[in-house]
Amino acid sequence: MRLRSDARGVYVIAPTPFHPDGQIDISSIDRMTDFFVAAGVDGMTVLGQLGEAPKMTHDESLAIVRQVVRRTSFPVVVGVSAPGFAAMRALTQDAMAAGAAGVMIAPPNTLRTDDAIVQYYWQASEAIGGDVPFVVQDYPLTFSVQMAPGVIRRIVAENPACVMLKHEDWPGLEKIAQLRAWEREGAMRHVAILTGNNALFLDFEMERGADGANTGYCFPDMLVDTVRLAAQGRRDEAHDLFDAHLPLIRYEQQPGVGLGVRKYVMMRRGIIASETLRSPGTALTPSARAEVDYLLARLATKDPRARVTPL
Amino acid sequence: MRLRSDARGVYVIAPTPFHPDGQIDISSIDRMTDFFVAAGVDGMTVLGQLGEAPKMTHDESLAIVRQVVRRTSFPVVVGVSAPGFAAMRALTQDAMAAGAAGVMIAPPNTLRTDDAIVQYYWQASEAIGGDVPFVVQDYPLTFSVQMAPGVIRRIVAENPACVMLKHEDWPGLEKIAQLRAWEREGAMRHVAILTGNNALFLDFEMERGADGANTGYCFPDMLVDTVRLAAQGRRDEAHDLFDAHLPLIRYEQQPGVGLGVRKYVMMRRGIIASETLRSPGTALTPSARAEVDYLLARLATKDPRARVTPL
Amino acid sequence: MRLRSDARGVYVIAPTPFHPDGQIDISSIDRMTDFFVAAGVDGMTVLGQLGEAPKMTHDESLAIVRQVVRRTSFPVVVGVSAPGFAAMRALTQDAMAAGAAGVMIAPPNTLRTDDAIVQYYWQASEAIGGDVPFVVQDYPLTFSVQMAPGVIRRIVAENPACVMLKHEDWPGLEKIAQLRAWEREGAMRHVAILTGNNALFLDFEMERGADGANTGYCFPDMLVDTVRLAAQGRRDEAHDLFDAHLPLIRYEQQPGVGLGVRKYVMMRRGIIASETLRSPGTALTPSARAEVDYLLARLATKDPRARVTPL
Amino acid sequence: MRLRSDARGVYVIAPTPFHPDGQIDISSIDRMTDFFVAAGVDGMTVLGQLGEAPKMTHDESLAIVRQVVRRTSFPVVVGVSAPGFAAMRALTQDAMAAGAAGVMIAPPNTLRTDDAIVQYYWQASEAIGGDVPFVVQDYPLTFSVQMAPGVIRRIVAENPACVMLKHEDWPGLEKIAQLRAWEREGAMRHVAILTGNNALFLDFEMERGADGANTGYCFPDMLVDTVRLAAQGRRDEAHDLFDAHLPLIRYEQQPGVGLGVRKYVMMRRGIIASETLRSPGTALTPSARAEVDYLLARLATKDPRARVTPL
Repeated sequence: MRLRSDARGVYVIAPTPFHPDGQIDISSIDRMTDFFVAAGVDGMTVLGQLGEAPKMTHDESLAIVRQVVRRTSFPVVVGVSAPGFAAMRALTQDAMAAGAAGVMIAPPNTLRTDDAIVQYYWQASEAIGGDVPFVVQDYPLTFSVQMAPGVIRRIVAENPACVMLKHEDWPGLEKIAQLRAWEREGAMRHVAILTGNNALFLDFEMERGADGANTGYCFPDMLVDTVRLAAQGRRDEAHDLFDAHLPLIRYEQQPGVGLGVRKYVMMRRGIIASETLRSPGTALTPSARAEVDYLLARLATKDPRARVTPL
Repeated sequence: MRLRSDARGVYVIAPTPFHPDGQIDISSIDRMTDFFVAAGVDGMTVLGQLGEAPKMTHDESLAIVRQVVRRTSFPVVVGVSAPGFAAMRALTQDAMAAGAAGVMIAPPNTLRTDDAIVQYYWQASEAIGGDVPFVVQDYPLTFSVQMAPGVIRRIVAENPACVMLKHEDWPGLEKIAQLRAWEREGAMRHVAILTGNNALFLDFEMERGADGANTGYCFPDMLVDTVRLAAQGRRDEAHDLFDAHLPLIRYEQQPGVGLGVRKYVMMRRGIIASETLRSPGTALTPSARAEVDYLLARLATKDPRARVTPL
Repeated sequence: MRLRSDARGVYVIAPTPFHPDGQIDISSIDRMTDFFVAAGVDGMTVLGQLGEAPKMTHDESLAIVRQVVRRTSFPVVVGVSAPGFAAMRALTQDAMAAGAAGVMIAPPNTLRTDDAIVQYYWQASEAIGGDVPFVVQDYPLTFSVQMAPGVIRRIVAENPACVMLKHEDWPGLEKIAQLRAWEREGAMRHVAILTGNNALFLDFEMERGADGANTGYCFPDMLVDTVRLAAQGRRDEAHDLFDAHLPLIRYEQQPGVGLGVRKYVMMRRGIIASETLRSPGTALTPSARAEVDYLLARLATKDPRARVTPL
Repeated sequence: MRLRSDARGVYVIAPTPFHPDGQIDISSIDRMTDFFVAAGVDGMTVLGQLGEAPKMTHDESLAIVRQVVRRTSFPVVVGVSAPGFAAMRALTQDAMAAGAAGVMIAPPNTLRTDDAIVQYYWQASEAIGGDVPFVVQDYPLTFSVQMAPGVIRRIVAENPACVMLKHEDWPGLEKIAQLRAWEREGAMRHVAILTGNNALFLDFEMERGADGANTGYCFPDMLVDTVRLAAQGRRDEAHDLFDAHLPLIRYEQQPGVGLGVRKYVMMRRGIIASETLRSPGTALTPSARAEVDYLLARLATKDPRARVTPL
């Protein structure tokens, strides 16, 4: 199954579960994958930035891909961003052979002109194979690369294999609106727009024309519900659910420390066995852990999913 | 009255109101200042980044300072950041002569080492006059300068005139905790820590040891209440109030577009006459305006302050 | 006299001479200006980055402009780059009223997309007055803004008042070639291209289509000769002269320390009275000074202009 | 043989020769290695930035290490910089097992405080094995990471395995002087300081206390001679030789295009078979090639090594 430009819904960004000694925790990967299936997600992205991709060897990366592809029937997207095309191509080819649906590519943070960005994606697509469906990751906060709407349109026009935008520009609501306006005018073909940034603006992004979420907030089940409510036009209900989670969404969206929050909550929810990060990684301090516990306790009064067993 | 290191509470960051033609709107400045007084703020900062300081001439800047100093009895802090020390000194001297309580200095975004940052503040203090109380603005998201906690400690140690930290690192909770730990251990003298970032983490910042807020969220009256509740240890009440405002706080915290949101809401609230920004400035699109209206309507069900007259 | 797009030759970037106490040294300004006239330069740019512009107040800046305009008959260009348009407009209007031929504008280092750069120059031109001739400064090493050739073409197309490019991209030879190719094809109107970067590539820049130099190397008289030889097609002679100076050119081109080198040599040559920089500025260490002396001694064996009186 | 802190002389940075189809050219690697031996270099660094390391897979990288280690008796240093420690450790272990003398590590370009840089090297050393000798690459122009002298001293103090600094800060002469002063005062243990930046300041770097060169200028034989002359105190002769090469050194030092210049000249000299770069890579334009030919022709009148067979 290949990723297509009519994808929609929630493509959850999966963390990589580790044992406390840093080894990959296969049984947690399985449990987490099953949880995602049960939650009703539409797809799954592994080995993104918050999947700790750069901390994995090629063989480890491939083992993770194989593990999740075997266990699911929905599309699996693989982050293949790398400082050079040789490693990007090698992982892409092995991942696609293992059954991945497509790959995600972030821009190197040295790109500084429109032309340089457009050229990079053209070269990358050529390097990995022009028939491999790919997702453009537009995340200036982390990558320091600003893609104007017109740049995204050029990438889409030049690369038939570009099928999805992982949109996490900030601010980004007007960018979604611009891309959708071009599509309506026939000035740009349709690609899926799924949004990231830990869902911090998911409520309004759906209303501006996004097709869903492509992020890894520790309650993917809530993302599924919010996207469904928004797609059904049940605006107030979507916002009510979203607002209940916003204090925690905001806390988890912090750069650096956010992944520790995400893994901690997923551990508290019984989805993965350990909150371990590979080095270099920022473990939560006791104060931060207590703050997350407090946020969970408050959230549990509004959404029963947040009721976790006391430690 | 000079700004002192025992400052606490809310020092509101004031926008600069303009007439639709871009001229400074003096009567809106007065009305806004009166509103701040009535809201119970403890001080006021003018000519910060979101006061559109770089878009003002020296004479305009000075006129604003004079206007607000005349009308208030609380301390007025003046942003004097400039690419060179000559302009910084000129504005500082005129502002202090006009009755300002102190100045705020942001680092130029070329500083890349601890020593360079420390040296910059030493030179700046010397340039403006070593007796002028100053606030260090620590805002890496906008200024691209990362100040490790140890750097702030060095700045405080070297400059007796440094009395306040405008803390808006992100993430920043551990930084507050570290600075307060040093203070308890006697390894750092006390300076006021007031937090920014549109109050996005004010709930926990207070619990970590902040002395208040130094930001410009469009409901400064809510900042006053949150800071007071937190200072009184009424934790759940503080969070309840904070959470009610969080959807709007988050929306206003967007870089670039945020100032337009702030001015629009302050106009809707009747505090200023026009939402005009000086060029270059990002005006709200009709979609964004409608989103803010929707957020205000939702907020009004929880906080009556948000009930605005329909347009 | 207004700056025009058919400008050519050497527009020397002038340092600002200070007395040892940091005050502006008017008589050194006069002596330096007379030296430039005698050297045969075609124009002069004051208040650029290496004119220490950000360290000057508005009034000081204007005094400098008046002093040099009075004393010369060639065009004087004034650097008016500022973090906001209010200060930029104020200095532009006063400088033009004082007889300046045009202004130079560098981009703020936050611009990250083609559209943002183009829009900035359009707004700046509107702010200073659409009839004021201006120079685009393209200096990515210092400003962190990358202008693709197409961006410069768009700026030229949208702004009739854009008459010159101060080209200091690095590498930059292909950019000159591209712009000149567009001009030959009728795809871009002619603007003057004068090159900077302390002349480090002046030899080949002239061969690629540059119209001259717009830099401040401590031997502007050598720049005049090199540009003339190159314009006359005396290639080997141009390179021979250039190569003799290259060891010193390279030494002076160092960021930060370079301006100290420039002022030291101009002081040794008797052009200005003191090598003083305003704070913050990097004074030469004794080792650096000795290295420059050694370079001057070596140069003097090839170019008699470098014979300076022993200290 | 392990790399030691008393290393000195020329450690040439080797490019990676490719066939025109992008495959690694083993026989050119051998011919190039033999040339380095004959030229009298003291060591060799493979897989640096200009060895196109990020464009290689792990297996290709290892094959290159094995090929050169087999053919030489001098130390071979291997660039192992990677976005994560897993890949860094994997290549280090395989390279050391294959006979490498040590590894070189560049900082990731997200590091922004002194503490973050120091911590990174500590974690990296732990990750690759605390007994593996390593070289710190200090190259702010490319990596955007500024290491104050005190940071380098801290890295050296905390990591016994740190034996060499590849110094390419710019400007950098005072940094060498500062480190050497600390060493003389007993405030810092000795590490080798070899300089990069295509040798643009090698003449004075040697006089400031550098132990040699660690760069890849297309005439490594000239680097050997310059370092020897400088070490023997034959100052004028060192500068005469250096100055003869400076026009070409400067041309090759251009970012981006420089590697194409280097490979082109090495091809013209018969050292490698093809100037091919892997994608993405900037091939020389015909104009650039003609300029290099002209520089070689001029150089040949001063240094017979530059006499190449006409094309």
